[in-house]
Amino acid sequence: MKRRSFIKGAALGAGLAAGSSVAPALAQTRITWRMVTTWPKNFPGLGTGAQRLADRITQMSGGRLTIQVFSAGELVPALGTFDAVIEGSAEMSHGAAYYWQNKSRATAFFTGVPYGMTSRELAAWIRYMGGQEIWDEVYDQFGVKGFLSGDTGTQAGGWFRKPLESLEDIKGLRFRTPGLGGQVWQKLGATVVNMAGGEIYAALQSGALDAAEFVGPYNDLALGFHQVCKDYYFPSFIEPGLATELVVNKAKFSALPKDLQQIVETACQAEYDQVASEFYANDPIALKTLVEQHGVRLHRFPDEILEAGALAAHEILQELRASGDALTQKTADSFTSALSILRTRTEQVDQAFLAAREKFFQLD
Amino acid sequence: MKRRSFIKGAALGAGLAAGSSVAPALAQTRITWRMVTTWPKNFPGLGTGAQRLADRITQMSGGRLTIQVFSAGELVPALGTFDAVIEGSAEMSHGAAYYWQNKSRATAFFTGVPYGMTSRELAAWIRYMGGQEIWDEVYDQFGVKGFLSGDTGTQAGGWFRKPLESLEDIKGLRFRTPGLGGQVWQKLGATVVNMAGGEIYAALQSGALDAAEFVGPYNDLALGFHQVCKDYYFPSFIEPGLATELVVNKAKFSALPKDLQQIVETACQAEYDQVASEFYANDPIALKTLVEQHGVRLHRFPDEILEAGALAAHEILQELRASGDALTQKTADSFTSALSILRTRTEQVDQAFLAAREKFFQLD
Repeated sequence: MKRRSFIKGAALGAGLAAGSSVAPALAQTRITWRMVTTWPKNFPGLGTGAQRLADRITQMSGGRLTIQVFSAGELVPALGTFDAVIEGSAEMSHGAAYYWQNKSRATAFFTGVPYGMTSRELAAWIRYMGGQEIWDEVYDQFGVKGFLSGDTGTQAGGWFRKPLESLEDIKGLRFRTPGLGGQVWQKLGATVVNMAGGEIYAALQSGALDAAEFVGPYNDLALGFHQVCKDYYFPSFIEPGLATELVVNKAKFSALPKDLQQIVETACQAEYDQVASEFYANDPIALKTLVEQHGVRLHRFPDEILEAGALAAHEILQELRASGDALTQKTADSFTSALSILRTRTEQVDQAFLAAREKFFQLD
Repeated sequence: MKRRSFIKGAALGAGLAAGSSVAPALAQTRITWRMVTTWPKNFPGLGTGAQRLADRITQMSGGRLTIQVFSAGELVPALGTFDAVIEGSAEMSHGAAYYWQNKSRATAFFTGVPYGMTSRELAAWIRYMGGQEIWDEVYDQFGVKGFLSGDTGTQAGGWFRKPLESLEDIKGLRFRTPGLGGQVWQKLGATVVNMAGGEIYAALQSGALDAAEFVGPYNDLALGFHQVCKDYYFPSFIEPGLATELVVNKAKFSALPKDLQQIVETACQAEYDQVASEFYANDPIALKTLVEQHGVRLHRFPDEILEAGALAAHEILQELRASGDALTQKTADSFTSALSILRTRTEQVDQAFLAAREKFFQLD
């Protein structure tokens, strides 16, 4: 096999020599890889997920592949992690694909897009409906490979200094919301502002911002937004899910023995479930704290905002399909056709059950 | 450490001698374990999931822990797999915990109960809200350990020979539906019948059954129920999710080197996501085939049935809490309090998003 002879000859990054491992993998070579991340140290759910993923790989490989984690800024800046893997100053990056929209607009689809897929739908597309193959094609351009490695679930819609009663209230609203979601809100009339998570609190307090969305109750409680705003809106129609990714240098990944490749891939998939579980368990507890201890008022966005948001999201999707970049168009087409099928099950089965449970099943 | 010295001295099952593995795990001992399953060979989603889980463990361990899969009846009967692990004629069982309700009524909660948790909620309870610890306590009685290893998502409600228009229509209806779900339908007036999946088709055809529920479109299409019945009802309020489990002999699991333990556990968690993805991707495609090629009519259960079902499910939950078995009561209490919290996020966030998407977001 070509791969095997390549392994024998390769001098892999980070000062390692690859073992000539075949099944049974008894390679005694120890490799140390650097995982640079876009998250602050121990950032709930996301930074902690990166660390847990690294630990799983280290433990499952019995230390043969040891992963060192660097939080944002420690080795490279948060938004420099993808380039670090391309250039070889790190072997792995943990972040979100939509941070790299300046490299390819297709990346948004592997994280989540406005009015797009839930975490279950995204995994179905990636694993069974051609999503991973297209993702591989997009990332092949950069010599890297991406794996789903976590998901926040549907996020919160945002914190508002004043209640939002109509579309009219959005005009000129200074709203912190990045990416495609920001484009949706811009179409609705907001003045969209981008700033790092750590700066939001002060900007809300000073009045430099009228509103901000970040993640959901679990993270938002930690950042203390409830001390400045009391009106918390749901749901985030712009982030029905936010998937994290592990990016690995493709040549280095291909040169790993098969068992270590499988360990990396399976660890990512387990973390996709673990991170979602962490958010599903901790979000409602944080939400209860926000309401009962901090007097936060929960609202649903008015229908006219949800509807206008859907039209704006549709326009953005159409723009991506017509963006002129063949791979972005291919990604958008695949995503759209998968979502058209997937939502029939979600609507017919999942939503029908959940609606019945909400309406009829009382726990005491 | 006690565990390590135990490993050194132990003569483990299946003719293996344990390696004195410590990190870095370079144990060269090769172990072969038998996984007996409750599924027919290559049963879509469930049998295929068991095989994939075995392959992952074998591959990630580089063959150090090789898993041989036996389908139902090959080594032991489908419902004999749990005992096989207890008695040592197999090291692993792949099935569903609720098959073992004759050993402990608590087992139902680790698979799914009527009007209970979705797959995301179940994982949140198991991994972050004390569920796994209680499961361990329940299975400690039998010397085994259980891991979530897959989930079908919310199932279909069932196939009916005649449309079901009211509660009245259920009286005397001969309905194949097992377990706690069967008890719910019995309370609604059905004559509940239990039979294996492979016998359902003939019984529907002969009129021995008026109705049957099995899994969902992906499996149901394969069994051809649409050739006999055209009325297909949603959602399954009795099976909002069905989790599969991997059961491992506890003493043998504890004696494994730490890296192999982590490999087994992580492989199960990855499969929990993989199996759900397989159902989410394949169910809607099968549903489309059933409707467009076989003239199947989709229905939602009438509200009065959904409501009566919720009351019956609540009664059954109360009966389990008062069953007199301390561990079953503890499990039911933990499940109930976790679900009370979890559903607030599901309702406030997930359902709010899904309802908005269904109502306002059109794809073309």
